[in-house]
Amino acid sequence: MPLNLSSIGRKSEPIEYSYSWKDVILYALGIGATNEDLNFVYERTLKVYPTFAVIPVYPLMAWAIGETNADLTRLLHAGHKIILHREIPVEGKLYTTAEITNIYDKGKHALVVVRAETEDGNGTRMFENIASFLIRGEGGFGGERGPKAGNEPPARKPDFIDEMKVSEVQNLIYRLSGDLNPLHVDPEFARFAGFERPILHGLCTFGFAGRSILRRICDNDPTRMRSFEVRFSGIVFPGDTLVTHGWKVDEKKYVIQTLNQKGEVVLSNAAVELK
Amino acid sequence: MPLNLSSIGRKSEPIEYSYSWKDVILYALGIGATNEDLNFVYERTLKVYPTFAVIPVYPLMAWAIGETNADLTRLLHAGHKIILHREIPVEGKLYTTAEITNIYDKGKHALVVVRAETEDGNGTRMFENIASFLIRGEGGFGGERGPKAGNEPPARKPDFIDEMKVSEVQNLIYRLSGDLNPLHVDPEFARFAGFERPILHGLCTFGFAGRSILRRICDNDPTRMRSFEVRFSGIVFPGDTLVTHGWKVDEKKYVIQTLNQKGEVVLSNAAVELK
Repeated sequence: MPLNLSSIGRKSEPIEYSYSWKDVILYALGIGATNEDLNFVYERTLKVYPTFAVIPVYPLMAWAIGETNADLTRLLHAGHKIILHREIPVEGKLYTTAEITNIYDKGKHALVVVRAETEDGNGTRMFENIASFLIRGEGGFGGERGPKAGNEPPARKPDFIDEMKVSEVQNLIYRLSGDLNPLHVDPEFARFAGFERPILHGLCTFGFAGRSILRRICDNDPTRMRSFEVRFSGIVFPGDTLVTHGWKVDEKKYVIQTLNQKGEVVLSNAAVELK
Repeated sequence: MPLNLSSIGRKSEPIEYSYSWKDVILYALGIGATNEDLNFVYERTLKVYPTFAVIPVYPLMAWAIGETNADLTRLLHAGHKIILHREIPVEGKLYTTAEITNIYDKGKHALVVVRAETEDGNGTRMFENIASFLIRGEGGFGGERGPKAGNEPPARKPDFIDEMKVSEVQNLIYRLSGDLNPLHVDPEFARFAGFERPILHGLCTFGFAGRSILRRICDNDPTRMRSFEVRFSGIVFPGDTLVTHGWKVDEKKYVIQTLNQKGEVVLSNAAVELK
């Protein structure tokens, strides 16, 4: 079934996401926070990792994919960006609306872009998510090619390198924050999808890189991050080691790249903007 | 303030505990379940670890301590026993009533014993918990000494030995199941209580030993466990390794002992009865 191109411009109804400090801590543990990150795992001094912004939005990603008629077995989360307007509170209710902003024609494949805006109960803008999904084999419909990926690392040593171990159960913890795709837990399902075993969620890797950025260049202050974008360019398994490199390219911007322990790039064309 | 001995025999109101499969999986991760324990961490084939029986009862332990007027800074969870009547469902509502069954006089210290019975919504008996709490310095009031701890290991090699690594974040995961005592997360609080850093929950160690028993002698079938009792005899830290030994002393009974990586006994006078 071809993609439903008339879904471009379609907007969702707003959805409510209600959460408590326990959800905030569970997310932090899901992206590898430890006893060293006390302010992100202890309710009495709690802060929220900025990459938590992806969590309230998750059901609308499923909505958008449904609207495009995409075949789920051909779907890959290709890239993600968050834009942060306010510090995320440790509990409350958030309201999100999404729009399918474009379906690009990459030749062989199609790229669906979804933008979601999240407000608090008073209508104050909190954050935005821009997600892109590659639908394999669905290109060639004569559409626009879309912008090229930027944020190439400069040909010099990075300004920071931060290494983090992904635990063997990281997939199991992360999925309790909402993305229950069996690809990340069910060995049979993972083999069927072509992987030797369950793989880590792309947005979990995104969270690890966000933590590296926060501790290396934001003094662990969530309000310092203005935006963070990545392309998912490699598979990460539970037990892998993630090494995030950052190049300062501007007073307020670092180009980011994350590699696994074999030196394979898993997050590319990535950048963080600071406030 | 001396202990309130007239609290002996006092019964609580019933409390309701409502839970979902997510709570069941979070508990399993809290006691160290991994991708190897798929049936305990994946909602599509989910089973409940029998030691989950301690979770719905937790608020009544706090109630009982309050009734006795015990000073919280002198309190130690000394021992715990669960008796399992039915397989615990993966979600639902459970109703528990507790009773302060005795306050024993151990000479220097007092030992408060609390018994809790849990039923489902139809009044079917599900499980029992018997918890004992040592109140340091509150003995010598001329009360009964109470039964001696039994279940000493025989002087021969154990019939099984099972080793499990406690992750560095085990304390952070386990506490999300309900026991939010800062002793298990707050370094300052832990130092104040005399520990170099936050310690693992005794009932988390109990859960690890339960997993060792389940995989070694119950074929990972939760319905095979009839009862499990321990004395907490040593401190466990996140990152420790737990080695559980079992001696078959009877067709349906094993004496259990759990040691840390230094060979120190952390669970003693322990036994499991099988169905």
